[in-house]
Amino acid sequence: MEGECKRRGEGQVEIGVMMEAVHKVEAAPPQSTVDKMKLRFKETFFPDDPFRRFKGQPPRRKWVLGAQYLFPILDWAPNYSLSFFKSDLGISYAKLANLPPIIGLYSSFVPPLVYSVLGSSRDLAVGPVSIASLIMGSMLRQAVNPNTDPFLFLQLAFTATLFAGIFQASLGILRLGFIIDFLSKATLVGFMAGAAIIVSLQQLKNLLGIVHFTKKMAVVPVLSSVFHNTHEKKLKRLLFVQWSWQTVVMGISFLAFLLLARHVSIRRPKLFWLSVGAPLASVIISTLVVFLLKAQNHGISIIGKLKCGLNRPSWDNLLFDSTYLGTTMKTGIVTGIISLTEGIASGRTFASLRGYQVDGNKEMMAIGLMNIVGSCTSCYVTTGAFSRSAVNHNAGCKTAMSNVVMALTVMVTLLFLMPLFAYTPNVVLAAIIIGAVIGLIDVPAAYNIWKLDKVDFLVCMSSFLGVIFISVQQGLAIAVGLSIFRILLQTTRPKTIALGNIPGTNIYRDLHQYQDAKRVPGFLILAVEAPINFANTTYLNERITRWIENENSMEDKETNLQFLILDLSAVPTVDTSGISFLIDLKKSTEKHGLELTLVNPMGEVMEKLQRANEIHDFLGVNSLHLTIAEAVFSLSSQNKLQQQEVSSALFI
Amino acid sequence: MEGECKRRGEGQVEIGVMMEAVHKVEAAPPQSTVDKMKLRFKETFFPDDPFRRFKGQPPRRKWVLGAQYLFPILDWAPNYSLSFFKSDLGISYAKLANLPPIIGLYSSFVPPLVYSVLGSSRDLAVGPVSIASLIMGSMLRQAVNPNTDPFLFLQLAFTATLFAGIFQASLGILRLGFIIDFLSKATLVGFMAGAAIIVSLQQLKNLLGIVHFTKKMAVVPVLSSVFHNTHEKKLKRLLFVQWSWQTVVMGISFLAFLLLARHVSIRRPKLFWLSVGAPLASVIISTLVVFLLKAQNHGISIIGKLKCGLNRPSWDNLLFDSTYLGTTMKTGIVTGIISLTEGIASGRTFASLRGYQVDGNKEMMAIGLMNIVGSCTSCYVTTGAFSRSAVNHNAGCKTAMSNVVMALTVMVTLLFLMPLFAYTPNVVLAAIIIGAVIGLIDVPAAYNIWKLDKVDFLVCMSSFLGVIFISVQQGLAIAVGLSIFRILLQTTRPKTIALGNIPGTNIYRDLHQYQDAKRVPGFLILAVEAPINFANTTYLNERITRWIENENSMEDKETNLQFLILDLSAVPTVDTSGISFLIDLKKSTEKHGLELTLVNPMGEVMEKLQRANEIHDFLGVNSLHLTIAEAVFSLSSQNKLQQQEVSSALFI
Repeated sequence: MEGECKRRGEGQVEIGVMMEAVHKVEAAPPQSTVDKMKLRFKETFFPDDPFRRFKGQPPRRKWVLGAQYLFPILDWAPNYSLSFFKSDLGISYAKLANLPPIIGLYSSFVPPLVYSVLGSSRDLAVGPVSIASLIMGSMLRQAVNPNTDPFLFLQLAFTATLFAGIFQASLGILRLGFIIDFLSKATLVGFMAGAAIIVSLQQLKNLLGIVHFTKKMAVVPVLSSVFHNTHEKKLKRLLFVQWSWQTVVMGISFLAFLLLARHVSIRRPKLFWLSVGAPLASVIISTLVVFLLKAQNHGISIIGKLKCGLNRPSWDNLLFDSTYLGTTMKTGIVTGIISLTEGIASGRTFASLRGYQVDGNKEMMAIGLMNIVGSCTSCYVTTGAFSRSAVNHNAGCKTAMSNVVMALTVMVTLLFLMPLFAYTPNVVLAAIIIGAVIGLIDVPAAYNIWKLDKVDFLVCMSSFLGVIFISVQQGLAIAVGLSIFRILLQTTRPKTIALGNIPGTNIYRDLHQYQDAKRVPGFLILAVEAPINFANTTYLNERITRWIENENSMEDKETNLQFLILDLSAVPTVDTSGISFLIDLKKSTEKHGLELTLVNPMGEVMEKLQRANEIHDFLGVNSLHLTIAEAVFSLSSQNKLQQQEVSSALFI
Repeated sequence: MEGECKRRGEGQVEIGVMMEAVHKVEAAPPQSTVDKMKLRFKETFFPDDPFRRFKGQPPRRKWVLGAQYLFPILDWAPNYSLSFFKSDLGISYAKLANLPPIIGLYSSFVPPLVYSVLGSSRDLAVGPVSIASLIMGSMLRQAVNPNTDPFLFLQLAFTATLFAGIFQASLGILRLGFIIDFLSKATLVGFMAGAAIIVSLQQLKNLLGIVHFTKKMAVVPVLSSVFHNTHEKKLKRLLFVQWSWQTVVMGISFLAFLLLARHVSIRRPKLFWLSVGAPLASVIISTLVVFLLKAQNHGISIIGKLKCGLNRPSWDNLLFDSTYLGTTMKTGIVTGIISLTEGIASGRTFASLRGYQVDGNKEMMAIGLMNIVGSCTSCYVTTGAFSRSAVNHNAGCKTAMSNVVMALTVMVTLLFLMPLFAYTPNVVLAAIIIGAVIGLIDVPAAYNIWKLDKVDFLVCMSSFLGVIFISVQQGLAIAVGLSIFRILLQTTRPKTIALGNIPGTNIYRDLHQYQDAKRVPGFLILAVEAPINFANTTYLNERITRWIENENSMEDKETNLQFLILDLSAVPTVDTSGISFLIDLKKSTEKHGLELTLVNPMGEVMEKLQRANEIHDFLGVNSLHLTIAEAVFSLSSQNKLQQQEVSSALFI
């Protein structure tokens, strides 16, 4: 890029000769407090201005637009053509959540139908996803054992799904969607990788055919479960004795097949159907193998009989018992926010690929309602799945109708094909899950983060390590906490930059960044790069004192420091502490024989300076300038002796 | 102030004719990650550069400086002269903390001695303060009843003081002093006023001579205690019957006397000794009155016998029992942070009045050590008190020696004068406390905050109302939470400003603020006023899309929008999400036929752009410019047709 910069340098076009007069700093036209509050409220909660389409439309048109806003199906259904049809059968993640596999199928039936009516993304494929399943399973397992008390566990899962839905819909209705913005990309890269490892380890139970397995999620107990679980009970038996070799062989071969298919389809995007078809093929082949070889009698565990029939209503299974209310609410909120993040991030990714917009808050309402309906129809938490949406996208489906098609396929399966699943071995489901989640470990992304931003990498790694060594929720909490702390630190310790003149111009830039920029004798020109508020006024005070001391000790004795110019171009806001700071700075610099000048205060800052000046009267005639160049010129012209010197330093 | 701006306008000096060529954007000279980390670490934890005095000194001098750094007494003691002596007897706040009054005297003896050796402020008068006493009393009272179990209560108070000291000293040693910066002025104004009301209400018990009184701190139970406490037990008795009229008369008269003295000394600063002497005079007069009239037999409660003698060691009274460990630690941390805030704010205020610097982290260590020593010598939590320091300051004392003098005065009292206090009525102490805390209600400050910044006023009021209606800790927590939320919101919803050219210049400014600034046809020039990071990239995406749509619908059809200039002058940092955002913006604007150009990226931003460009190669030849003017000129010269138009719009 440096090359490019230099290439641009060749142009060396003269911009034009122009005169610069001393311009006055203006305040924005006055605005009432109510108006300002309104504007701020609008920017905070309605940044996408969802009602702009309605402006200036006749009433009848407004009704149509309103209906289309609530039910986007009205928007695209008329344009719908049969060629968009596409079938997609999702992988069941229900086992990850310690739920019966049939719940996974139920959850691939109702929610896609709901989403196809309410959702605004055309690419999003809806269903259970690995991360949310994993979190739900691990959080609920802390309260109830799914093996000894499966029905209670199921009740808690439905209730947590209801809370997730309510939480998601409320975020959308209250327009608090920005909460999910606090899950940064770095956090998610680390989190996904950590979760993928946890998920894969959990599946070792099925992949290796281990019977006794730990209930915990972190890496250490799982690994000790894999290698040592016999150790405790029967010390003398050989290690690994609980593994079933038939299961291991079957698992490893299908996993290899799936990973190969994935690898090929990544290398050759045209063969994407390979990675789509592989899981289904694996299920069919393995089921046939087990059925023909009667392998279930040789140590391979199978799903077993499943009842035919569509989702049963589950609203009478919702449990609001106070013993479990805390657990279900917490689980609902955490899975709700995580699944929202995946759903909305996926929706936005594909929308930007096709050049349309996804309304975040509306998506939240859609996903929330989908989960509320789901919790009453035997579904657990669902969202837009990135991997399946990618399949949809590659297959060229262009409307949310793909969700309807998927739901119909699942319906056919539920009604007629359930008996066929009886012989499907659990080990193949494990292989499918591992094959899917391994794709979530994005090493190149982590490497890019390392190269670009070390603090982000720290966030990424703490989220990764936190998830695998502590717990899913705490790993996430640590990463989010770090990210927020970083933002706060940027405000608490804002940058102050000493500026110098770029010879032959009116431009003032960072002395450190621009090596040919020159100090102006007698002037200290500082730019502050953050809002000035209670959190940083103490720091700024100390920092500026240090700048002045440095300058005084550096300056040759011919020209003493006389002027302090504070460039406020990068100060978007001040609060009352910030104003006090400026007033105190004015006084304390005067004590040191320095004259303080403020340059280019922004609208809000200017307004507050004006109001503060009405009270404290601290701004003198020369205290405000529009540009640094004007400030330097105007101040040095006060001092005739120095003017000559500055002029010669600056303008030649 | 507008007047002043205009007055400046009269000058209309021409700055000089100069040529502007196209300049290249430079990155700062490369720096290793370790160096950058070091620098960031230094700015975060050593912003005051405490070691700069040591640089380039001979080793012997370094030792002397080091000793002076640790024990500032060495710094000023040699300059000490007898004329600085001043005596100050603090008011005992021990009763506010539900502790025996003698503890208040003990706490005015040892801590000032410790501080005079370690502290760096010359004006700070050290001793118990109302707010910390109040908080300690109210927090410990939740665990133990001071009336039924006074010794256990005392033990907890000493232990909490120890924790407060350890916490304060650790903050100083770990250089985490910026934590107290999060208590903004607005928070403190509200908090002080709320606490003053709570304190005054608590003292109504003594002022009105009520025997049965609520244990709670909030306004509602206290007021109902004042008016209705007889109500419950003996419904038929008259209201107010538990009040003792003798006490009421005495209390009201002394309160009136104290408030009058305060009022006079505020009006005439020369009479400051009035407000200093009034409490002492009240104690002496009231004690005499009680003694002579034997008023203790007429319903006036007195302090009673106090033992003579200096502080007894209390390290064997420290209680680390696990039942109370949580309470004492929490109390220690909250009182520690609150008393630090008062101590350091007071120290800084008076230091800036005299033009010297107070080292925040060193002060924390001094105050922390003082409390650790205090907890072992029968003292409870102490800090620098604003009101007493003001007295010191007005009296003209110029070194921390005033603390030694105060300690000596207290010592004499403890050794010889204790029997005299036996007849001091509690009602006078109540009047003194109320008189003192009423000064903390700073209505003009609250009004100024309202005028300057409505959000700050909200913070102030929530802290005030939270303290008086909920609880001291929660009121504070709400206010701090709001302040932090506001900082986060400024990053989450950064300002984007559309800029226009100020005719006849190269200057580009906010179109809204500068009414004569003009749009450049075909250009949308936006400035972002915050770091671009994970918390705001979604918002920025939506906001910029909206700007483009607005612009397209507004623009007259002759000149379509062709260029988007993003001014990064006010973007101090980007993270990986920010970089992805810029890359995506480049792509998505290209899709809309717009060319994106970045102007004036700061050092860190430029560096990350360079590194990202090595990976993604998204910056074209015309993608970076040093100033907006150069970007506009260089871009419009691409398009010959438009150049004429832009030139005529800009330069004439």
